[in-house]
Amino acid sequence: MSQEFGSIYELIRHYVEIDDVEWEYCKSMLSFKQFKKKEIILSKGEICSEIYFVVKGILRIYFVDQNGDEKTFHFSLENTFATDYQSFLKEIHTDFYIQALENTTVIIITNEMLNMLYANLKNGERLGRLIAEDYFFMMNEKIKGLYTQTPLQRYNSMNVAYPRILTRVPQHYIASYLNITPVHLSRLKRGIE
Amino acid sequence: MSQEFGSIYELIRHYVEIDDVEWEYCKSMLSFKQFKKKEIILSKGEICSEIYFVVKGILRIYFVDQNGDEKTFHFSLENTFATDYQSFLKEIHTDFYIQALENTTVIIITNEMLNMLYANLKNGERLGRLIAEDYFFMMNEKIKGLYTQTPLQRYNSMNVAYPRILTRVPQHYIASYLNITPVHLSRLKRGIE
Repeated sequence: MSQEFGSIYELIRHYVEIDDVEWEYCKSMLSFKQFKKKEIILSKGEICSEIYFVVKGILRIYFVDQNGDEKTFHFSLENTFATDYQSFLKEIHTDFYIQALENTTVIIITNEMLNMLYANLKNGERLGRLIAEDYFFMMNEKIKGLYTQTPLQRYNSMNVAYPRILTRVPQHYIASYLNITPVHLSRLKRGIE
Repeated sequence: MSQEFGSIYELIRHYVEIDDVEWEYCKSMLSFKQFKKKEIILSKGEICSEIYFVVKGILRIYFVDQNGDEKTFHFSLENTFATDYQSFLKEIHTDFYIQALENTTVIIITNEMLNMLYANLKNGERLGRLIAEDYFFMMNEKIKGLYTQTPLQRYNSMNVAYPRILTRVPQHYIASYLNITPVHLSRLKRGIE
């Protein structure tokens, strides 16, 4: 069983030291959940009560703009998190949707678990700070990209941020992530622009 | 002297408990800096080596898009922070500019100070986590606004986020913050849209 939690163990150790007793404590709280391809696991108006750590598969975080169009905000690939962190922490209604794009296995983290980790791990608060900082950086890059990058630059950044994304995700989700039309995306891929 | 640091003391106590000995330790590291109206205090390509906590005045964070146009990303009013946190923490070159829009007094926080606070305050890491989370939420709102709100909704959100901003900041900076033209802003203010 411990093998199966290996990916989240590695993630924690990337940020902070954790001893064997602490890791056993963490493991005792962790559990898996499975989602089917295309399943919607969070919808606008709900309160996001879990953080998903993707073990295998892809989750897509998106919202619907004022014209009713889906805008893909983020793809969560293996070994990354998916949640509406604001809805999760503040227990407010989410504006986001989360959908599985493949059959997906996740590790579940609840708010209660997170608070127990902060209280009981020596480096728990530090772990929380470092992860919050990294996700802040990700948002920062996203905003800078929207303001300052051409669609081609955003396309190239996406391929760095999400390796092999083009082969795993339907093209209209890629286009909505880049905030361009599918026709524009086809032109980009053919190298016309 | 301690009176002058009162605003940052209140901010810390908003997030965590801090005892008198710890606060004396913090205070011994803090210092003020003054910027003149219109002064540019950070430019693209530099490494952002300080966090500014605004005691009095306004700082504007902006960047220049691919067309050479300034895009105002954020206004830091009294009792809020201004920095490029990513450049600051990772010691990488910034894409942002920071400018004083009024004669401005700030409290300076360096990376060395921050690490000493994390190491030596009982709730230092927790303070860092909670502040990182709040700034993450701010970015989240910003991105959601860009995707899902009309210019009028963004205008209304801005007036909530930055009280009295319209009377303190030149209109072309307001327009660039809302990502609309100054003409469009005038129409919004006259209630035509």
